[in-house]
Amino acid sequence: MNYPIIAKILGRVMGLEAVLMVPSMITALCYGESLLWYAETAAIAAALALLLNLPKVKYKDFYAREGFVSVALAWVLMSAVGALPFVFSGEIPSYTDAFFEIVSGFTTTGSTILTSIEPMSKGLLLWRSLSHWIGGMGVLVFIMAVLPMSEDRSMYIMRAEVPGTTFGKLVPRIRTSSAITYLIYIVLTVILIILLCAGGMPFFDSVNHAMATAGTGGFSVRTLSIGYYDSLYIDVVVSIFMLLFGVNFSIYFLLLVRRFKDALTDSEFLGYFGIALGAAVLIALDIWDEYGGFWNAFRYSLFQVSSLMTTTGFATADFTLWPAFSKSILILVMLIGASAGSTGGGLKVSRVIIFFKSAAQEIGKQLNPRRTTNVRVNGKTLPAATLHNTLVFIGLYFLLTFVIVAVVSLDGYDFETTFASVVSCMSNVGPGLGPAGPMGSYDIFSDLSKWFLSFAMLAGRLEIFPMLILFAPATWKRK
Amino acid sequence: MNYPIIAKILGRVMGLEAVLMVPSMITALCYGESLLWYAETAAIAAALALLLNLPKVKYKDFYAREGFVSVALAWVLMSAVGALPFVFSGEIPSYTDAFFEIVSGFTTTGSTILTSIEPMSKGLLLWRSLSHWIGGMGVLVFIMAVLPMSEDRSMYIMRAEVPGTTFGKLVPRIRTSSAITYLIYIVLTVILIILLCAGGMPFFDSVNHAMATAGTGGFSVRTLSIGYYDSLYIDVVVSIFMLLFGVNFSIYFLLLVRRFKDALTDSEFLGYFGIALGAAVLIALDIWDEYGGFWNAFRYSLFQVSSLMTTTGFATADFTLWPAFSKSILILVMLIGASAGSTGGGLKVSRVIIFFKSAAQEIGKQLNPRRTTNVRVNGKTLPAATLHNTLVFIGLYFLLTFVIVAVVSLDGYDFETTFASVVSCMSNVGPGLGPAGPMGSYDIFSDLSKWFLSFAMLAGRLEIFPMLILFAPATWKRK
Repeated sequence: MNYPIIAKILGRVMGLEAVLMVPSMITALCYGESLLWYAETAAIAAALALLLNLPKVKYKDFYAREGFVSVALAWVLMSAVGALPFVFSGEIPSYTDAFFEIVSGFTTTGSTILTSIEPMSKGLLLWRSLSHWIGGMGVLVFIMAVLPMSEDRSMYIMRAEVPGTTFGKLVPRIRTSSAITYLIYIVLTVILIILLCAGGMPFFDSVNHAMATAGTGGFSVRTLSIGYYDSLYIDVVVSIFMLLFGVNFSIYFLLLVRRFKDALTDSEFLGYFGIALGAAVLIALDIWDEYGGFWNAFRYSLFQVSSLMTTTGFATADFTLWPAFSKSILILVMLIGASAGSTGGGLKVSRVIIFFKSAAQEIGKQLNPRRTTNVRVNGKTLPAATLHNTLVFIGLYFLLTFVIVAVVSLDGYDFETTFASVVSCMSNVGPGLGPAGPMGSYDIFSDLSKWFLSFAMLAGRLEIFPMLILFAPATWKRK
Repeated sequence: MNYPIIAKILGRVMGLEAVLMVPSMITALCYGESLLWYAETAAIAAALALLLNLPKVKYKDFYAREGFVSVALAWVLMSAVGALPFVFSGEIPSYTDAFFEIVSGFTTTGSTILTSIEPMSKGLLLWRSLSHWIGGMGVLVFIMAVLPMSEDRSMYIMRAEVPGTTFGKLVPRIRTSSAITYLIYIVLTVILIILLCAGGMPFFDSVNHAMATAGTGGFSVRTLSIGYYDSLYIDVVVSIFMLLFGVNFSIYFLLLVRRFKDALTDSEFLGYFGIALGAAVLIALDIWDEYGGFWNAFRYSLFQVSSLMTTTGFATADFTLWPAFSKSILILVMLIGASAGSTGGGLKVSRVIIFFKSAAQEIGKQLNPRRTTNVRVNGKTLPAATLHNTLVFIGLYFLLTFVIVAVVSLDGYDFETTFASVVSCMSNVGPGLGPAGPMGSYDIFSDLSKWFLSFAMLAGRLEIFPMLILFAPATWKRK
């Protein structure tokens, strides 16, 4: 293991985190709040950055192992330091709670331990939203976009940090790819801020909700979430933008370079919108009566499906009170999640597609054991290694879910609450069901559960392997 | 597709079912009940047997496709006819309910739609228990053991009907293997009948409970299940025998031919007992206080774990009332299930072991992408095809579970009840949680749910592929 290089990468992350305190300081200035909490955190992050830069790099070897370990450690460290402003302010006095809150931020989960949002300092609210925005596209991807880094190193880091089965290089150079992706991301976020302001949402609220939507995070500056504004225009804009941020960003790149056919016939793109629409219609039919008519029901079902499938987690309705069938569909879309290469979480539509094709192939193989067939996606044969990795990933996803359910169930909440909260954290959605539902809080869980749920969020965001690799003895063995 | 041969196989199954009415008729005679219901059913089965024997076999081609289709159709047909005595008697007037009950019998699930057992006719109770016994080891396996059949044909049928990843041929000839397996099965069942009678259980009860234990079914002749007798001796005997019937029968064969080392170092055998014991200890610690002491708690936890892990489904305690942690562990062992090549259901311990080894291999591969490693079980390298099939199977298992949960949730019961009932049917366990728990009944569900749960039971027993293959267009295409 090349420890000095890993330390250098962690140092850069700390440097970035120090800089990320600036927006909160500006907000605090505007609203006449204390700057101290952010200054202290920035000082600690900067000091760590200097310390981590001390070890001398003796050789440049950097492989998959180093890539996974740096990404996993970067996320843990970033969260450990990012929790400090909450603790310093005294507004979230427990470190466990603060850590849970900021992990929920960076992983774009959006589960909160707060029961009432409005009394919080504006600077802290902005820090929550900003953690969504930077975590959505990836902290190390951001660093790569702005600082020079060798191609090899970038590749291993991208592979560990960017979600999805295939990591899409848009252009031959990875650094340029990261920069293009971030540029698209910034432009879409700015458009959303303008649209929300145009709909009458205050500027501060618009900036926060736009960042939370872009990262498919789900933290809101209102206890009632987007439902607070009770505006059809805002509901529709946010529904559409949540869906847009759940699309693989390489689709936008294809559109920019006018490869329309490739973009619009992409099977994940079609599958993603198909599932979202299908689920929204099914739920609208189920809640028709309660909402007095199909179209009103569809307004709420589409918002909630977009929100849960893209794993954002905003709410305009308390779906905890919806019928059991609707709740099952919601849990299903939570599990499926958004597209690979988007800011959304879950299993990812591409993996679900690969799984269905593998299952069909396996049935064919059972019928004709001697015939060999391949699994093809978008006209290309999938390598056996990708197939195997996808299947193991899906299995691990369920396994981790069940293990964490067993731990969280020690708190004694009913099975629906426990199960939905764990799935919600693993898929980086945010709200669960029952008392941890969209109008509730994760405050109800014990400290032990909060640490396990924090682990679930990190494992979900980094797609399990980097977090498990931290615990594999083989990782730390000398070669 | 070679329809005439499939018809001939189905004809034999009908012939067998006619004969299987005899024990119920004898019981009815002893207890002075009506023989008519069984005679009518036997006549219908015999008539179908003759009809199905009419088509002339023109060629002898019999491949995987024919194997899967005959087994899947045999189970559906057998259940369709097996439901008749309940309907004729008027004791289960609804055909949907009767079909659910007998599918639950043959698949050794043991979920019942009855709310009170004692008022039923003794002949019908025996028919329920007998369906467990014959379904446990396999109807077609039984036919193979007593009637001549070509080796090729037997192989494809065994592969479709016997659960587990690898189908263990004990001796070179399949027919001899089936006969040996059934012999071990009969001997163990008879020993159990004697032990139960010795413990003061009435003879009729002993025969029924022994057959239900042997098939890891779980139908009881008492509403309170084994808890009715409230005897430590009976609890211990049944606990042990449930575990014994959840062992791969080839282990018993190895013991008979004195290959002790192979038998006792088998990784599934060790994993199976390890998981059962671990789960029983964890639950005993959780319910310690309620049961006043570890050993009393362990008596009940061991019984419930043996019952659910072997997917039998007997109960001596209403575990619906246990704490959430214990319930999570119970759902986990339900999912894992018993050993391959046993009468138990679930994913099977061998598949779980293969999955863990694949996951470890995949983590190793992520760390060193260039190194190729194999997954080894019991010192042998697993073929890539088996690995792939196992992973797809696990994925399909969860997928089917979630789809059926969505349908059953239409009935509007809480998530715990719905989820546990579906897992219970898929794994052929029997009792779920909530109102469908060990002291409850599946009577609460709608007809639609009952048909989907019947499908879940068949899919679980035949390990998904044969049932899915029935719906694959490729199955019915002419070559």
